[in-house]
Amino acid sequence: MTADHTTAAPATSPSIRDGAFGHATGLVCRECGATQEIGPHYVCTDCFGPLEIKYDFPAVTREQIEAGPANIWRYKALLPVPDDIEASPNLEPGFTRLLEAKNLAAELGLAKLWVKDDSTNPTNSFKDRVVACALSAAREFGSKVFACPSTGNLANAVAAAGARAGIKTVVFIPSNLETPKKVNSAIYTENLVAVDGNYDDVNKLASEIAGEEDGWAFVNVNVRPFYAEGSKTLGYEIAEQLGWRLPDQIVIPVASGSQLTKVHKSFRELVALGLVEDKPVKIFGAQATGCSPVSEAFREGWDVVRPQRPDTIAKSLAIGNPADGIYVLDICRETGGAVADISDDEVRQGIVLLARTEGIFTETAGGTTIGVLKKLVETGQLDPELETVVINTGHGLKTLDAVSDLVGPVATIAPTYDAFVAAGIA
Amino acid sequence: MTADHTTAAPATSPSIRDGAFGHATGLVCRECGATQEIGPHYVCTDCFGPLEIKYDFPAVTREQIEAGPANIWRYKALLPVPDDIEASPNLEPGFTRLLEAKNLAAELGLAKLWVKDDSTNPTNSFKDRVVACALSAAREFGSKVFACPSTGNLANAVAAAGARAGIKTVVFIPSNLETPKKVNSAIYTENLVAVDGNYDDVNKLASEIAGEEDGWAFVNVNVRPFYAEGSKTLGYEIAEQLGWRLPDQIVIPVASGSQLTKVHKSFRELVALGLVEDKPVKIFGAQATGCSPVSEAFREGWDVVRPQRPDTIAKSLAIGNPADGIYVLDICRETGGAVADISDDEVRQGIVLLARTEGIFTETAGGTTIGVLKKLVETGQLDPELETVVINTGHGLKTLDAVSDLVGPVATIAPTYDAFVAAGIA
Repeated sequence: MTADHTTAAPATSPSIRDGAFGHATGLVCRECGATQEIGPHYVCTDCFGPLEIKYDFPAVTREQIEAGPANIWRYKALLPVPDDIEASPNLEPGFTRLLEAKNLAAELGLAKLWVKDDSTNPTNSFKDRVVACALSAAREFGSKVFACPSTGNLANAVAAAGARAGIKTVVFIPSNLETPKKVNSAIYTENLVAVDGNYDDVNKLASEIAGEEDGWAFVNVNVRPFYAEGSKTLGYEIAEQLGWRLPDQIVIPVASGSQLTKVHKSFRELVALGLVEDKPVKIFGAQATGCSPVSEAFREGWDVVRPQRPDTIAKSLAIGNPADGIYVLDICRETGGAVADISDDEVRQGIVLLARTEGIFTETAGGTTIGVLKKLVETGQLDPELETVVINTGHGLKTLDAVSDLVGPVATIAPTYDAFVAAGIA
Repeated sequence: MTADHTTAAPATSPSIRDGAFGHATGLVCRECGATQEIGPHYVCTDCFGPLEIKYDFPAVTREQIEAGPANIWRYKALLPVPDDIEASPNLEPGFTRLLEAKNLAAELGLAKLWVKDDSTNPTNSFKDRVVACALSAAREFGSKVFACPSTGNLANAVAAAGARAGIKTVVFIPSNLETPKKVNSAIYTENLVAVDGNYDDVNKLASEIAGEEDGWAFVNVNVRPFYAEGSKTLGYEIAEQLGWRLPDQIVIPVASGSQLTKVHKSFRELVALGLVEDKPVKIFGAQATGCSPVSEAFREGWDVVRPQRPDTIAKSLAIGNPADGIYVLDICRETGGAVADISDDEVRQGIVLLARTEGIFTETAGGTTIGVLKKLVETGQLDPELETVVINTGHGLKTLDAVSDLVGPVATIAPTYDAFVAAGIA
């Protein structure tokens, strides 16, 4: 315990140790602004609005951050985690590559383009960031089970982080999930539970268990406010890796919309803390047409997001009723950005385009983001002269089927030099 | 060009720019010691022995290295690459996690264990390190085609690096390779060439093309001396991440044996440069029984390695006639280590063990290394009280089939809270 912690002691229940949530001071409702003390809560007791973390940040310098580890804990002072977070086993995600994408920029006619590549996280998606923060919260709350409902990236991340932390971990999936996707999570946990129902059924069951059982930390349910903060580290890293600067434009995939709102929040925090200079940043959201409720609302000029029934290969983006949809609309409109959507064929082409130009194999969510980037340039909604960042959230090895009909050998030859010459490859 | 470069100018053909290979001064035969000037050569003109890089290293400090980028180029002064290497598009691999593995250590009865996790490299294996160095060499030689024969990790790494570099890239694979493995490389390159034959046929064709065609850089054939040096970065990183210390013991998988010899070399270089204190490091090699020529030779006390016909699920280790086999034998014997092998079932169990204890999903090669580590402890060949490092070379997403019968849901339940309670998971 340092003196800083003591002076900004969080208001928490007595069973929680001092400094357990760093400089977080409470939970605040995003709708009515009511506050409550820190706990495994996610809904405002006054208006049932969503809660998020409130902080009293200390002075933080670039040098302090740069002296930290090459993972998300370098930003621990800005997250709801304790100062000794590095001592607890976790997946240590983050500080992934920010690659200048000259080939893709040339292909799309952009002056300057960067890809933030989260496919190289421990379980190959950005979910490792949020799960790492949820795991810290679960530990500090003394939770006895770490859990989630999920069909994909989140399930992998929770199962892996729970294994490393040595906490009982239970992952709920729809029972009709394909075998490879089951293996990707079952490899890490003894407690993969198949539920006869669709993802909505699994999600509902998870909320019920979270309400009935003591000591269960469902990362995206009752510890969601802590979990969601992990996405801020994407924004912090982009700014630091650009040399403590903000980009002019950024394109972010939209599922629940949480990632986009948190990246926006991270940029505002860096400005408020004096870590980067303030400047306008246009924020763009990317969806697949088969699940594009936020894009539809943006296009139609609506203030509400109408739920859709998802039907797209971009399954990790297929949330028909996105919790943060209206916040995404607000941010994209306020910053001069946009939300757009593309077809599943364009998603597939986006995957191939990124791989062929930059050597990065992205999943369908990343294909969506690249495809939307291309569309935004073509429609003139994104300024090709401004410095642009695009986020790749996950790995193509997990969604191989999406492209397996699209790419393959250019030729099949006999194992002789003559056959090689005849094929005209040289 | 700095003055240092000029004074230690490499002996190269006139078409190669000064400093193109950093502090490398020539090629030296590992058998007879004959030297020749730098070029796309891999065989001694005197005795047909294998060539490796010779250097005249400058003084290098820990601080210089620590100030470098979070990838292998932080060690550029110790690699055959130019000082401006970071300016050329590459995959920027390396500086992967070194995780303390307390759960696995407890499971195996080890005092202190670390996992060097190369599954988080850009294309999810250590091959990104060697390919990055090969790409630099291909560029400096003015090669017009970047190529390899491969069935797996190497194909992925070459195709991805070539795409990002914007150089024509051709990858040769056996035509009977499974579709997912074809997709993993075809996603990055238009020029995936299927060859009707087994891997030996493909390899032979590659050597023939390398001999016949000008300007083809086959990473593991004619630029192999440059390529192989990339594995040294595994050793450099382990030492730096341990706080500029060498471990007491290290377990490394053996395919050609190159990685093990280069990690050994890297430790010796760090000692010679005064970057770490000298100390004994026992080096252990890991093979799968179905392809264990080096382990057999070690056990039998032979000075030669008898070729074997591979038959194991650990396909990325299945080299029946390993080029560096005798060097591996020498190193493991001299350092007090050993080479051991395990069955395919033990390989599978090794994969599950690492995932369940540390949240790391490894491929069959990593399962082999973990399984051999376990065996070495059980046979008393590895001292459980000494600080041990084990290398995880690749990702389990690429060898899903190996474990898909081994793991799965613990229960299938109806989507109700009652069904959840009845299943006894809480």
